[in-house]
Amino acid sequence: MTTKSKKKTTTTRTKAVLFHKAAIIGVGLIGASLALALREKKLAREIIVADKSARHCALALREGIAAEATRQLSRAVKDADLVVLCTPVGAMGAVARVLGPHLKKGAILSDVGSVKQTVIAEVAPHVPPGVHFVPAHPIAGTEHSGPRAGRADLFAGRWCVLAPLKGGNAAAAKKLARMWEKLGARVKTMSAAHHDKVLAITSHLPHLIAYTIVSTASDLGAHLKDEVIRFSASGFRDFTRVASSDPVMWRDVFLNNREAVLEIIQRFSEDLTALQRAIRWGEGDKLHRLFAESRKIRRQVLEQKQDTNEPMSQRKP
Amino acid sequence: MTTKSKKKTTTTRTKAVLFHKAAIIGVGLIGASLALALREKKLAREIIVADKSARHCALALREGIAAEATRQLSRAVKDADLVVLCTPVGAMGAVARVLGPHLKKGAILSDVGSVKQTVIAEVAPHVPPGVHFVPAHPIAGTEHSGPRAGRADLFAGRWCVLAPLKGGNAAAAKKLARMWEKLGARVKTMSAAHHDKVLAITSHLPHLIAYTIVSTASDLGAHLKDEVIRFSASGFRDFTRVASSDPVMWRDVFLNNREAVLEIIQRFSEDLTALQRAIRWGEGDKLHRLFAESRKIRRQVLEQKQDTNEPMSQRKP
Repeated sequence: MTTKSKKKTTTTRTKAVLFHKAAIIGVGLIGASLALALREKKLAREIIVADKSARHCALALREGIAAEATRQLSRAVKDADLVVLCTPVGAMGAVARVLGPHLKKGAILSDVGSVKQTVIAEVAPHVPPGVHFVPAHPIAGTEHSGPRAGRADLFAGRWCVLAPLKGGNAAAAKKLARMWEKLGARVKTMSAAHHDKVLAITSHLPHLIAYTIVSTASDLGAHLKDEVIRFSASGFRDFTRVASSDPVMWRDVFLNNREAVLEIIQRFSEDLTALQRAIRWGEGDKLHRLFAESRKIRRQVLEQKQDTNEPMSQRKP
Repeated sequence: MTTKSKKKTTTTRTKAVLFHKAAIIGVGLIGASLALALREKKLAREIIVADKSARHCALALREGIAAEATRQLSRAVKDADLVVLCTPVGAMGAVARVLGPHLKKGAILSDVGSVKQTVIAEVAPHVPPGVHFVPAHPIAGTEHSGPRAGRADLFAGRWCVLAPLKGGNAAAAKKLARMWEKLGARVKTMSAAHHDKVLAITSHLPHLIAYTIVSTASDLGAHLKDEVIRFSASGFRDFTRVASSDPVMWRDVFLNNREAVLEIIQRFSEDLTALQRAIRWGEGDKLHRLFAESRKIRRQVLEQKQDTNEPMSQRKP
């Protein structure tokens, strides 16, 4: 393998560096992890992070997440050939409006949002001609948030969904896919609508349920609440972990994937009502059948070997 | 420390052995773990397990869970000074009816059921005079079941609730508490009614919710279902783990803690409806406030240091 290539101006498969300058906008868990991963894999010559929070910028520098950090979006994206929006989903439209005019011709603009349809609707209008917008969603995370939660191996073995626009630049999508693969992710391409439907079930509903159950418990009288916390290891504890994820991120997810989330809540509520009824009327056979079915799904999930078989909290170093 | 004591007939604090013969009725995850733990801590001179399944009995012998295994309840409890019911909750009444007449005078009869009020109602009538019934519930488990899932350290650092009967033998309750403490558990005494209410929230509701969400997902069309399994690591996966617990045990729990479970489902449904409404009407502030609150509860749970901070699945060797 040689790092030289005959045509110096094109990126070939044998060349590790994919980008000259990568700008990561928003340096929370995902942004920090992406910056760290790009550096570790040497996929960009220069990496700059931008964040509206001066504290996050300072942290990013102190923790060595990037060599440069700024609060100025125009400065961050100047001459960048890769710009990735890593803010909460609800901020992406406004951010794109500010940085859009400063994007370099030929640059790839992407994002990591957990929702794709509204992000596309809000970001796409601000993308100037000649800039290639490739929406993406790396399905990775922990319940921790902020720059310090970042880790270079966050995407290893995880899925990254690409939801390229119809008529978008195929070469740009291919290059972004290559980047995610080099970071250890498995890439899957699908429509934004399909993504939002699947994630509503696999991610948004579970988080909403976890938040609800923790809320139900916290509304109990003080004495009962203490006991719930004391005996949390009997099941409740796992829910509190899921429900400790970043509140702003999740608020935005629910507001921005409203239709798909409301539909799946409806289905869930119907199923819960059916179980409630089976308990009320003592229908043991029905309960047993349903519980036994769940084991089959569990087996299928384990067969996927999607990750190291460790729950998210265990992946933190 | 000496293993001899001046009065040979009384059990003193310096003497490790608490029981001459312990009979463990039902050799699933908890029964097997209890037998292994009693042996490891040398708390009983003789340990026998009983199970209606010949396969479980054979497994118990092969895996060295106990030196003796039988399908005959009368044989198991003969001369035993400790008998612990470790069957699913729904079977305990019938089991007590059969073994009651064979219990030794002065013996302690206990159980490990996740529900206490119905177990007491169904078991107590079959306890002969002179036998001390001390209902208990070690709050420990994994999503695995059967004799092979047993492990001697299952109870270490976990809570064990004792729900002694009014007017019951105090010395017997104290002795049982000592046993659980020697197995590494922290003992808490409370009324059966209070136990059932607390566990409905910390354990029964979370399991019911996990079963429901997995059921909702499995009712999706085949294509969507495949995608849900593929992308399960985004949250869904954790629920499938909880929902893979023993179906018979959980059927019995829900049928036997009906009132408390139905009440908490009702509260949960109201809270979910409120969140659903906030999403529908785009009430971001309300969502954010509630999600931020959940983090506080998580912190309180972590401060409890109830176990090794590992989710249940990780505690398996």
